[in-house]
Amino acid sequence: MKMIIAIVQDKDSNRLSNLFIESNIRATKLSTTGGFLKSGNTTFMIGIEEERIDEVLELIRETSRTRKQFMTPPINLDASMDSSAAYPVEVQVGGATVFVLPIDSFQQF
Amino acid sequence: MKMIIAIVQDKDSNRLSNLFIESNIRATKLSTTGGFLKSGNTTFMIGIEEERIDEVLELIRETSRTRKQFMTPPINLDASMDSSAAYPVEVQVGGATVFVLPIDSFQQF
Amino acid sequence: MKMIIAIVQDKDSNRLSNLFIESNIRATKLSTTGGFLKSGNTTFMIGIEEERIDEVLELIRETSRTRKQFMTPPINLDASMDSSAAYPVEVQVGGATVFVLPIDSFQQF
Ligand code: NI
Ligand code: NI
Ligand code: NI
Repeated sequence: MKMIIAIVQDKDSNRLSNLFIESNIRATKLSTTGGFLKSGNTTFMIGIEEERIDEVLELIRETSRTRKQFMTPPINLDASMDSSAAYPVEVQVGGATVFVLPIDSFQQF
Repeated sequence: MKMIIAIVQDKDSNRLSNLFIESNIRATKLSTTGGFLKSGNTTFMIGIEEERIDEVLELIRETSRTRKQFMTPPINLDASMDSSAAYPVEVQVGGATVFVLPIDSFQQF
Repeated sequence: MKMIIAIVQDKDSNRLSNLFIESNIRATKLSTTGGFLKSGNTTFMIGIEEERIDEVLELIRETSRTRKQFMTPPINLDASMDSSAAYPVEVQVGGATVFVLPIDSFQQF
């Protein structure tokens, strides 16, 4: 057994949570805050057999990795309208930090 | 020293917390959410000497293990009354997941 | 890489958080509760290179160690006034508990 601690963006946590449930992976969720960005994130704590570590990492990578996304910026009503206002811009979303920790023992009561 | 991480049901956490205090075991509590059940649980983080690990595990097992309990189901006023409505049913409560983690160092400032 | 888990008093957490940001140390914050004192504390989870462990420990010690502080006790209007009421008293504040944990792997997606 190992313990996986994964910190993901709040916006990706529901999808990841559902994938864990579908895959019969027990994850405990903690509400956390990042150091750099003040925005909320979610930390998952998972106890998992060694042979399933790659499966868990792949689920995290799939749902939560850093990726580009097009977003239409909110229109600033106070600014003079110019032609750029209507164009979507590419922003970076997501991102996950994952630790795999050794454990001495694991028990369920 | 080892770190014990114990995830227990919210309903058992106060009793466990009090036992830790009585036993002079310093525990830090985190409010967490389970992956399967949406219900809240509590995670305890404990730094403990190797010789006291069994004592901590026993306190967790005693207060928080999975056990059967009789509960009187709430009466459904909309349903036609039948004789079974008054009988208590046996439900499963509690349950704890416990990790013991190795640590490189432990310091207090 | 190692994982540092540091539990500090709430009143010291903002200053520590800012020092981590200035020092380019990524820390994830959890809102936690102590076992002895009911007062809130904050737990920081940090992934750090071995060569920077002492730097992190020093930042925690500097901002969060147990120290004496003079405080003027609130005046009790119901009590008969005596000359001691106006004098500040020395109280203990702060305190940090720090674990350094080994990790098997660390990944960012
Ligand atoms: Ni194992
Ligand atoms: Ni030891
Ligand atoms: Ni390393």
